[in-house]
Amino acid sequence: MKNFVYNTPTKVVFGKGVEEEVGRLVREFGGHKVLLHYGGGSVERSGLLGRIRKALEKEGVSRVELGGVVPNPRLSLIREGIELGRREGVDFVLAVGGGSVIDSSKAIGYGLADGGDVWDFYERKRKASTCAPIGAVLTIAAAGSEMSSSCVITNEEGWIKRGYTSELSRPRFAVMNPELTLTLPAYQTASGCVDILMHTMERYFYHSGGMELTDGIAEALLRTVMKNALVLRDDPACYEARAEVMWASSLSHNGLTGCGTDGGDWASHKMEHELSGLFDVAHGAGLSAIWGSWARYVYRNAPARFARFAQKVMGVSGGGTHEEMAEKGIEAMENFFRAIHMPTSLAELGVHPTEAQIRDMAEKCIRGVGGPVGVVRPLEVEDIMEIYKKAQ
Amino acid sequence: MKNFVYNTPTKVVFGKGVEEEVGRLVREFGGHKVLLHYGGGSVERSGLLGRIRKALEKEGVSRVELGGVVPNPRLSLIREGIELGRREGVDFVLAVGGGSVIDSSKAIGYGLADGGDVWDFYERKRKASTCAPIGAVLTIAAAGSEMSSSCVITNEEGWIKRGYTSELSRPRFAVMNPELTLTLPAYQTASGCVDILMHTMERYFYHSGGMELTDGIAEALLRTVMKNALVLRDDPACYEARAEVMWASSLSHNGLTGCGTDGGDWASHKMEHELSGLFDVAHGAGLSAIWGSWARYVYRNAPARFARFAQKVMGVSGGGTHEEMAEKGIEAMENFFRAIHMPTSLAELGVHPTEAQIRDMAEKCIRGVGGPVGVVRPLEVEDIMEIYKKAQ
Repeated sequence: MKNFVYNTPTKVVFGKGVEEEVGRLVREFGGHKVLLHYGGGSVERSGLLGRIRKALEKEGVSRVELGGVVPNPRLSLIREGIELGRREGVDFVLAVGGGSVIDSSKAIGYGLADGGDVWDFYERKRKASTCAPIGAVLTIAAAGSEMSSSCVITNEEGWIKRGYTSELSRPRFAVMNPELTLTLPAYQTASGCVDILMHTMERYFYHSGGMELTDGIAEALLRTVMKNALVLRDDPACYEARAEVMWASSLSHNGLTGCGTDGGDWASHKMEHELSGLFDVAHGAGLSAIWGSWARYVYRNAPARFARFAQKVMGVSGGGTHEEMAEKGIEAMENFFRAIHMPTSLAELGVHPTEAQIRDMAEKCIRGVGGPVGVVRPLEVEDIMEIYKKAQ
Repeated sequence: MKNFVYNTPTKVVFGKGVEEEVGRLVREFGGHKVLLHYGGGSVERSGLLGRIRKALEKEGVSRVELGGVVPNPRLSLIREGIELGRREGVDFVLAVGGGSVIDSSKAIGYGLADGGDVWDFYERKRKASTCAPIGAVLTIAAAGSEMSSSCVITNEEGWIKRGYTSELSRPRFAVMNPELTLTLPAYQTASGCVDILMHTMERYFYHSGGMELTDGIAEALLRTVMKNALVLRDDPACYEARAEVMWASSLSHNGLTGCGTDGGDWASHKMEHELSGLFDVAHGAGLSAIWGSWARYVYRNAPARFARFAQKVMGVSGGGTHEEMAEKGIEAMENFFRAIHMPTSLAELGVHPTEAQIRDMAEKCIRGVGGPVGVVRPLEVEDIMEIYKKAQ
């Protein structure tokens, strides 16, 4: 078991109608004037923005607004948000959306509280010492950014996708009403479920340390998400299933499922980041397309761990060697991905990288980490290329 | 499923040697002068207090000290702490101990930040609007006060035991080194394990609402604590088992295992509070002495729930009616209590209440709640008396 820090200060307000409380929550955390930050028109059309404006007005919280966040949120809009926020004397950033909007808000938060160029943090030129307070009204269960310390943004100059992690950016509060996700397209719902599963699976496949309690919680979370992803495939309007998945999205990425481990593997995430950097794919779908290939390439380095996964998470009955169990578990997870109409190969994802592109992505993975990728089996360029190829 | 608020701002620093970080943590949360609050001489003799003094000095944090906290912490010492803290200009309360010391520290925190009489809050005369910041160095895994919003203290004038709950008192940080619990007496270790189990079991036996994810996490926690309580019975010096139990103590009572439910039953806790108010018994031991009697009295109101408990937590194999499964599950839990040398009756607890005492305790239970006790089967005075009697 490794020493760990568990820090989840985000106050979660969860359930039907809780967006009505957003004005009170901004006040509770010291906000007087918010930058209301969101994505496309759906939050306007659904009436959500209207309800939020009203909730803010009711508590005397003034605001400026900035919409237009896109998946893989852009630095140019973040810079616009920082400038707008400074000019208008904003003291709180309120994100209304999914992971992209929250990540964009975190970047604006860093920029608002800091004098210099916000991209410096993502370039590792400086460390942030402060961040404007963030609040989130979650509309997509997937990324877990509503309780996490990380954010990923894209600089259009060179299309560089970079993450930055600091405790400073954890949202002060997260307002989570599962009803807001009832009308999400099926593909986005399923892709979100894969993202949630993977945030815990990346942590679950660790190399050293570990705790039984963490393993048990992780396994319960994975089983719950799989079960409810199938419910939502057949009945997208099921509130209870939406709620299970939404709460799992937060617990999957707030640190809980990694307590006492070495932090987990994360190779699949790194390979997917390069993939979605080069091709325009949904993050969860990219992960399901790669995972099986990764798992088959590395499981012989941790056969007991993969056998446990097969048994406790995938319900594979005992018998056979660890290796045999592991293979059955990997197959069962791929079957689950197929069952919720998620791709299990790059071809199904609609992506056909050339040899040169594969090498380029693999080299970027290594460069991003500064050495071998992952802990179950530390991967070099040739290993990563092989995994991409086997995923074709 | 019910709406819920999940608020766990306590920063947990967990593992070997983490008490060395206490000075840095006090500074991080704005403290300059602490009231170092503790119980008996064991923390002095073990060298823990010495290490903490050094860690504080290293960071330039000054201090005053107040020891002498006893189980069921006393109002008189709390008043002394408030007076001392005010006189000395203390801006942070640092608890070094178990639940009693942390609860005493919370009460001092309320008193320090407030001008009036601290007992007012426990008498429900006023609501606290502020509390001095608290930090905890945990030495006993049991009460979960290190991440909870509640505290229970005893007023020696009339020996009135009262609790007060407010988000204001959640510790800013909790320093948890499982090594500090390696030398606890076996009885205290086992009693702590029962307390941890019961904090989740009280929530697990709810009447309405509920989430699969919460159930799954609760079940994983209960199985982990039982398994490691048996390990510690045979090998008290096992660090890994101490760590599992310590982390479970926090997660069991920080709200996680109750998300989406109606809050749970809590009748066993209320009956035990009256018991330990009248007789001097360890809280966990009092709970194990009562629980089976409570469970047998109420399970017919929730047979499916008790059957699930039997199967998922106690490992009772399927077959038979819900009622039959429920009975087997209750018996299995009592057998577990016996296996870790915890009492399953009042006689084994060494307590022999008279009819008048039983009535008195039952009436106090009702008065404390202002109506029937518990949600699985709301209990009136006669019901509670029957449960006490069947526990004899």
